Amino acid sequence: MSKPSLDYLFNPSSIAIAGVSPDVNRPNLAQLFVKTLRDFGFKGEIYPIHPSGGEIFGTKVYTNVREIPGPLDYVISAIPARFTPQLIADCAAKGVKAVHLFTSGYAEIEDEIGKKLEGEILKIARKGGVRLVGPNCMGLYCPSSGLTFAGDFPDQIGFPRKSGPLGLISQSGGNCIYTIREAVERGVFFSKAISYGNAADLNETDYLEYMAEDPQTKLIAMYIEGVRDGKRFMQALKNLAGVKPVIINKGGNTETGARACASHTGSLAGSAAIWQDLIKQVGAIPAGSMSELVDMAVAFLKMKVPHGRNTVVIGTGGGIAVQSSDDITGAGLNLPILPQEVRKKLVNIYGSEAGSIFRNPVDAPPMASVQKYVEAVKVISESSQVDVLILHCPFDIWAMVSRSLPLRPFIETVAELAKVIDKPMAAVLHYNTGSSSRQMVAEVQEKFVDLGLPVYPSVQRAATAINRYIEYYERLKGVKKFSVAPCSKRKAC
Amino acid sequence: MSKPSLDYLFNPSSIAIAGVSPDVNRPNLAQLFVKTLRDFGFKGEIYPIHPSGGEIFGTKVYTNVREIPGPLDYVISAIPARFTPQLIADCAAKGVKAVHLFTSGYAEIEDEIGKKLEGEILKIARKGGVRLVGPNCMGLYCPSSGLTFAGDFPDQIGFPRKSGPLGLISQSGGNCIYTIREAVERGVFFSKAISYGNAADLNETDYLEYMAEDPQTKLIAMYIEGVRDGKRFMQALKNLAGVKPVIINKGGNTETGARACASHTGSLAGSAAIWQDLIKQVGAIPAGSMSELVDMAVAFLKMKVPHGRNTVVIGTGGGIAVQSSDDITGAGLNLPILPQEVRKKLVNIYGSEAGSIFRNPVDAPPMASVQKYVEAVKVISESSQVDVLILHCPFDIWAMVSRSLPLRPFIETVAELAKVIDKPMAAVLHYNTGSSSRQMVAEVQEKFVDLGLPVYPSVQRAATAINRYIEYYERLKGVKKFSVAPCSKRKAC
Repeated sequence: MSKPSLDYLFNPSSIAIAGVSPDVNRPNLAQLFVKTLRDFGFKGEIYPIHPSGGEIFGTKVYTNVREIPGPLDYVISAIPARFTPQLIADCAAKGVKAVHLFTSGYAEIEDEIGKKLEGEILKIARKGGVRLVGPNCMGLYCPSSGLTFAGDFPDQIGFPRKSGPLGLISQSGGNCIYTIREAVERGVFFSKAISYGNAADLNETDYLEYMAEDPQTKLIAMYIEGVRDGKRFMQALKNLAGVKPVIINKGGNTETGARACASHTGSLAGSAAIWQDLIKQVGAIPAGSMSELVDMAVAFLKMKVPHGRNTVVIGTGGGIAVQSSDDITGAGLNLPILPQEVRKKLVNIYGSEAGSIFRNPVDAPPMASVQKYVEAVKVISESSQVDVLILHCPFDIWAMVSRSLPLRPFIETVAELAKVIDKPMAAVLHYNTGSSSRQMVAEVQEKFVDLGLPVYPSVQRAATAINRYIEYYERLKGVKKFSVAPCSKRKAC
Repeated sequence: MSKPSLDYLFNPSSIAIAGVSPDVNRPNLAQLFVKTLRDFGFKGEIYPIHPSGGEIFGTKVYTNVREIPGPLDYVISAIPARFTPQLIADCAAKGVKAVHLFTSGYAEIEDEIGKKLEGEILKIARKGGVRLVGPNCMGLYCPSSGLTFAGDFPDQIGFPRKSGPLGLISQSGGNCIYTIREAVERGVFFSKAISYGNAADLNETDYLEYMAEDPQTKLIAMYIEGVRDGKRFMQALKNLAGVKPVIINKGGNTETGARACASHTGSLAGSAAIWQDLIKQVGAIPAGSMSELVDMAVAFLKMKVPHGRNTVVIGTGGGIAVQSSDDITGAGLNLPILPQEVRKKLVNIYGSEAGSIFRNPVDAPPMASVQKYVEAVKVISESSQVDVLILHCPFDIWAMVSRSLPLRPFIETVAELAKVIDKPMAAVLHYNTGSSSRQMVAEVQEKFVDLGLPVYPSVQRAATAINRYIEYYERLKGVKKFSVAPCSKRKAC
């Protein structure tokens, strides 16, 4: 069955922005939208709109969308809610395909006026053949067509122009922004991201069905507070089982959380347990937070599917090894004692076990001897009883390190390992304390991400993500339909 | 009953370091100990020891402790384990009071030789009247007397010379280092910290009893893998109930974690559930990780005891408010809907609820209007139905922020609030993504810490710590002995 494509949303040839202050000295968010789209490289026409007219950034400000001379595909509204019925009527008259309502003040506020207004704009939009994104949301991010709602500033707090395999559908704008920033730092880039807010017209399932068919999207991530049509949503997920993995973080898992959902996007949230069960039954993957969702995306896109759960942690520091052990087992992975023959080889490499631990976790500092570290990791990875390797690099527990720490040999070592190790392998980089340890980790993380390594900020987070990743493929085993692994780099294993 | 004081450990007049390489071009850890103690400002004599003699940093290297002319209080050993029986015998002959064995290779390694050697050194030490710290540990940190095992480097990865009320007893050196670094960044300083390793001689209870009587120590934190004498340890905790709070992170809560404990410090760890119960029964406070332990220390030392659990989160972003709600309730605090009269006042301040949420969490961005933010927080804090305020500042979800964000007015606002708000109040600063958001948070955190505010990296961590803090004082209610709150700044409430 062919679905109505939303391609037109992500590829407008022209955009009007309603509510743009025509005074550079009195900037508002709509003005920032103009600037951001330009800076990000949107190639089509950008038309600022404001009732008082004038000029901004050398461009004429139109007083109304109907005044615009050429065709108009897409409108971003940042005007007060009470003026939006007229705007949408004007858009319908102009033949606009879709309006993104950044504007809030509809069903999410408590009074009846907001709810009534949302009903009204929906009616006008439906009648006039205009689709609505939102209201009460950040809108669309699509690097390939130059759409964004956060600028690509030189200090990297914006979004990159680089595309990737992850499609994000988020009911919350803040969570959408946060997820893009966290994912990009970990080397995960986006095909498209949608912050969709109240979902008065286009809703989560419309976006999901679009992402399902979008060839650029290999993995789908969602943040949902409430679902408009549960049956249709679950069917869409079922259709995707074994085709494209869908990771879902459901907000509002407690009574108070559900109340916050109602305030935020006017959604009625369901119980956590029911949701998690339903989501798993239809083959999707639940995540407990946006960070957990990113962690899983990193595993799905950057790690081969492990054969099993036997994990070896190679790290530094006994106390942290104890915590790692509790974390690995707590997350559902195994931490087997290394076979006697492997431990003998490790004793040979290091001369003795004094000051190290070779059982598992392996306490073998990478800085002491790069060569020994490479040999040790190789020896461990060659054991048939090992499925997953975690390189644990806690920069902030080392006693006498300084900025002069020789990071380059360490990075080169791991680069070497990434080439020769055939088993699924992740790196854990701690960066909780001290500006210098944070800076070191940022430097190392960038290099590791370039190597294609999955990087995590804690053993607990790595283990949780990897376990869910294994679980997903276990659940799908035997499902005929399942054929394509989301990552081209993944080997059948 | 008067206990033998360990004051001599923390106030040696002279220190010898065994194993110091006399060649600056071939530095080893013992040489770094010499340098670190000097740089940190240890005022007594420092005697480097190495069998080959010579000179280092302009100081004579002695070939043996017995050669040293003056009296000698304390020796740090960084020589191979097999040479330590002779070293300890020499120390006994010289009249040394205590030896810190940085050296590892004893009961924590798997072969019988290590265990035998640990027995042997203990016998020699006992016979000669020498006390042992360790083996297999980092030793002592005491800023007031200039003792440390991590240098005070200009880039802040070392430990500060400033003293404070927290006493730390950690079986793991890495966890000890990590905890000091994390705590100091949050404004919590140390009276003393001990990394005690295998505890062959002096053990966790000896250190605990010392901290109990140490007037500089107002709050005690412990990381334990195994306890040498459970009965005595529990009695020491009982004696402290209501006098000085003791926060304990017990490593090795799973089978694999217990195995890692054995490898790390030769300890036999017990079950998690039994431990948690026992610890609570004797009035101590369990922590699940070193970060959780720091979080609790921040609450105990920087926050007034809340009257109850009614918490208001004042933050930015709806999606993150939903997550906060789940986190607050999940941690055991309450998140009551704000009373109608308070919400009315908030609508008056902001003009409308559009784009904000006034139920709770309150979605009211501090940057949009500093004046409105101050008024809003004041109005909320004045409600009799509010016990705790959490200012939630997620720097990394803001869409269009840049480095030019006006941080100063925001910092001044919170400084103003810290002065006028009488209710327990904490700040949550997110810094997960982007170098610029991390830098902003570091800057803001430093100022907030200077204001004496408790600062946390997530709502979940703040809520967990605050809930345990309330729980502790609830449990102690009615305990006659309880009189002194650990923080002088705390008012009776």
